[in-house]
Amino acid sequence: METAVRELRRDPVTGGWVIIASDLSREPGEFLRHPGSNGKCRLCPGEERSTPPELLAFRDSGGPNEPGWRVRVIPNFSPVLRVEGTLDAAAEGPYDRMNGIGAHEILVESPVHDRGLADLAPDRVTDVLFALRERFVDLRRDGRLRYIAAFKNQGEAAGAAPHGHGQWQIVGLPVVPKRVLAEAANGLRHYAAHDRCVVCDLLQREVADARRIIAADNHFLVIAPYASRVPFETWIVPRAHGSHFENAPQHVLEAAAGAVRATLRRMNAALEEPDYNITVQSAPIQEGSLAHFHWRIEIVPRITRDAGSGFEWGTDARVNPTAPEEAAQFLREALVD
Amino acid sequence: METAVRELRRDPVTGGWVIIASDLSREPGEFLRHPGSNGKCRLCPGEERSTPPELLAFRDSGGPNEPGWRVRVIPNFSPVLRVEGTLDAAAEGPYDRMNGIGAHEILVESPVHDRGLADLAPDRVTDVLFALRERFVDLRRDGRLRYIAAFKNQGEAAGAAPHGHGQWQIVGLPVVPKRVLAEAANGLRHYAAHDRCVVCDLLQREVADARRIIAADNHFLVIAPYASRVPFETWIVPRAHGSHFENAPQHVLEAAAGAVRATLRRMNAALEEPDYNITVQSAPIQEGSLAHFHWRIEIVPRITRDAGSGFEWGTDARVNPTAPEEAAQFLREALVD
Repeated sequence: METAVRELRRDPVTGGWVIIASDLSREPGEFLRHPGSNGKCRLCPGEERSTPPELLAFRDSGGPNEPGWRVRVIPNFSPVLRVEGTLDAAAEGPYDRMNGIGAHEILVESPVHDRGLADLAPDRVTDVLFALRERFVDLRRDGRLRYIAAFKNQGEAAGAAPHGHGQWQIVGLPVVPKRVLAEAANGLRHYAAHDRCVVCDLLQREVADARRIIAADNHFLVIAPYASRVPFETWIVPRAHGSHFENAPQHVLEAAAGAVRATLRRMNAALEEPDYNITVQSAPIQEGSLAHFHWRIEIVPRITRDAGSGFEWGTDARVNPTAPEEAAQFLREALVD
Repeated sequence: METAVRELRRDPVTGGWVIIASDLSREPGEFLRHPGSNGKCRLCPGEERSTPPELLAFRDSGGPNEPGWRVRVIPNFSPVLRVEGTLDAAAEGPYDRMNGIGAHEILVESPVHDRGLADLAPDRVTDVLFALRERFVDLRRDGRLRYIAAFKNQGEAAGAAPHGHGQWQIVGLPVVPKRVLAEAANGLRHYAAHDRCVVCDLLQREVADARRIIAADNHFLVIAPYASRVPFETWIVPRAHGSHFENAPQHVLEAAAGAVRATLRRMNAALEEPDYNITVQSAPIQEGSLAHFHWRIEIVPRITRDAGSGFEWGTDARVNPTAPEEAAQFLREALVD
């Protein structure tokens, strides 16, 4: 057989990079209740020596790699991209490739093994966002990295392993991925035409229309986006323009944590604890502040039997059987404690 | 609650159209062993009166909507887009929308309820491609339609209902979907720079390199694409340039049917009858012949636990744990009868 391949490859036909990682046991490592010592979960307190040394921790007591932390970030056990090496970006005939260089980290959300994000105390959700911000700020110092994908998979329908410890993944990529490139291009076009950010424009529209608003406070609008890809897709969007998550002021991140927690609690009540993906959508990290890009947090509940069909594979379009106006009304009216 | 919504909406932030179909019971209708008379499958012979009148049939005996057909095309029972009405494309504030106009048809692959495409006789696979071609040619006469997505979902992991009758879906769209737009833009850029089709270029490269070739004959190259999105993704590409599937000469479509059948039999042998999606990727139907677009058939096996994670939702990028060189070698060496 061939030797292992660990590289980024760009499809010249449809565009977009794929990470080929043939020495990877499986897809972006979600962690089983993987045996540390005595068969305990190795992300649990007391098992710190079963993981690579921590990159960051917020703690009430103890020293590095000891118990006492509230949030802890470690390198991924089985990273899809590796920090060591050089990119060696090059053409290969009609193709583009580079080595599989990047960062892949795990943010352990809380010391409690199976506490959902919605069930953490408000300050603990703030800890999670603050820890993400610190990792963004640290990773952008690596000039090879151009984008950070930060996300959590909650539940098996969302790609998580069964009974895993609550965790986020942070992937630092040496390329700007397709969806973000498209957003930057669309945003720039809108800005060139109107001298306004397209997301700022649509927030105005959403406030005036009101039908797709799920919740709102001074700092955030929680909306069902107009062209929702799946039932109950939800965006948590800062009212004040800003392109980079990691540059958001402290009080905005605190409000973001509150909005994330409240929205997840609302979904848990209305949709009976759905599996979901939550992602931070932010501008490419090596860019300065951009007038045409607007960061936000997206939640994609995974409630439909949604294996993906030939329609999605062939077109990258989607069919959504729930109108966002309906979804917003249902979530808006949910009784939340 | 809101009234039902049936429209196409474009996301101004990331681009791309979504079909919102809130009066749809579920996603693009795969058909359960849906009771016709006496609880029989209504796609089976003898149940023709349980379906809408047929749009096309190739038959050995009988008249329209009678048994005796080899392949049969009918309107979808629960279409995501409807033929009747006007598009009424319009801006809605910062958004773009149009009515949910289009075509949605079912191609019943064979009279036998649970015969896989790979297990049909060679001439029957040719019938399927010829029937698809006839529907493309008929649908392009409707000037409102701009693209046809033709695909089959095989197995539950690929989005099919359990125990359904072997079928393709044909969706005529009033817009060109994102993946096809990207391909046309990339192809045009390559053509502008080099006066060559990018797919013709990569076929040359693949022949010279040989590592990603699964099979080849005079008319088709079967390859594991350089930037495969999933393990064992396979493209069946005509060697001769052509932009439109429906304009391929008869002998090329016959060769395509042979290549599809042989490739699926190869996958069945090597990967133990995997679930898969198969799609026809062709140029927008209202365009004349394009020098920069190259039609093909794509197969996406669904063998990994591939729920899709926050990484894919946030970036539209993918991680593939199997190098295409490895996949091609494995399929190339499979013993096929």
